[in-house]
Amino acid sequence: MSLKLFELVGTDERRPFSPYCWRTRLALAHKGLSAETIPWRFTEKAAIAPYGSDKVPVLLDRDRTIVDSWAIANYLEDTYPDRPSLFGGDGGRAMARMLNWWGDIAIVGGLFPLVVADIPAQLGPDDVGYFRTSREARLGRPLEVVAAERDKAVAGFRKSLDPLRLTLRSQAFLGGNAPNYADYIVFGGFQWARVVSPFRVLEKDDPVYAWRERMLDAFDGLARKSPGFPV
Amino acid sequence: MSLKLFELVGTDERRPFSPYCWRTRLALAHKGLSAETIPWRFTEKAAIAPYGSDKVPVLLDRDRTIVDSWAIANYLEDTYPDRPSLFGGDGGRAMARMLNWWGDIAIVGGLFPLVVADIPAQLGPDDVGYFRTSREARLGRPLEVVAAERDKAVAGFRKSLDPLRLTLRSQAFLGGNAPNYADYIVFGGFQWARVVSPFRVLEKDDPVYAWRERMLDAFDGLARKSPGFPV
Repeated sequence: MSLKLFELVGTDERRPFSPYCWRTRLALAHKGLSAETIPWRFTEKAAIAPYGSDKVPVLLDRDRTIVDSWAIANYLEDTYPDRPSLFGGDGGRAMARMLNWWGDIAIVGGLFPLVVADIPAQLGPDDVGYFRTSREARLGRPLEVVAAERDKAVAGFRKSLDPLRLTLRSQAFLGGNAPNYADYIVFGGFQWARVVSPFRVLEKDDPVYAWRERMLDAFDGLARKSPGFPV
Repeated sequence: MSLKLFELVGTDERRPFSPYCWRTRLALAHKGLSAETIPWRFTEKAAIAPYGSDKVPVLLDRDRTIVDSWAIANYLEDTYPDRPSLFGGDGGRAMARMLNWWGDIAIVGGLFPLVVADIPAQLGPDDVGYFRTSREARLGRPLEVVAAERDKAVAGFRKSLDPLRLTLRSQAFLGGNAPNYADYIVFGGFQWARVVSPFRVLEKDDPVYAWRERMLDAFDGLARKSPGFPV
């Protein structure tokens, strides 16, 4: 096995924080695969340009390069079919495409304004400038203005989790009795928030909080071992 | 085969309109099963009370009674395993639980204020009073006030479809190349809207519109044959 994974980090290489890289990291664990981390920072575009990407995750599997977390999940499922399934069948793979978009919009998109202002503290000087400029352009406002609204904005985020919350009434994971890629999609966002921000995105009595705890414990505490804030 | 299905209707028995009954009707078609319709109206609580329910769908399969569209889908999958799978595996079944909640909240809940004021026109005198009173209590406002806002409210509904819309970029159905229960979950809401309301909930150039057309054509036009508005 000679898997290598470019993962987004800041000044602390033990704190990879991209929600998409965490989807891939957990998918690898699900398949019982380990990959060597290649730490990668926002401004190191040149390091991944040869692989045809300007974003991570980028997975190298011997002579193959796979770019984008969704493509990687499908690659792992197809290339390692004898290992535990990420999707639990063709129906699950098709439905996971929708949950992946829901995760991008509701989870990553919903958490973004809540945690974005804390990210520069994780970054080195080169990355801080890039990050602030690109994200403020996306938001149309300074990071501090967005952060000032987060105590109010968090209520809307929590409400948007209702489909997840209601699902957890009748099953421990989105994947059923055990986690599958649907869980990694959603959890990736929560792990990103936990690594970069002390802001409390979930209340302790929320079933989603209990599910996040279970996800932090999965694979011998793979996600919990990565340093983060106690949220 | 002696399946019977209680389906919500108003004055026209050819226009069953419950979004949940349509999930079941399409699930039956997917399994290649036909069920005799027992038309049921809002105020006919006594007709289904013996089956332990005050809502439809209620499915009767010889001596078995199954209540609630999600329970019925699982029952059909487990009882008729040799027929085409509704979920495409255990992963799909688990993920469909979440899509079912998303469908309840984003689709049925999102369409409700857009079409609710048109529903009384479908109902007989006994049902009109029940419907208006119970729905206005839920909404906290008269139906006409809700309807007056729908030209503005529809933009938010259309935006909420982004996870579905983006999924349809890369696959024809939520189930992949062919529809499965995930599609019936979501389509049930659109069919409800089409049957009861002339209000245009989708724009013609929306990929969701094209998907709805494919769903209207599925199973020899099962849904299209049910009279509805040209939306």
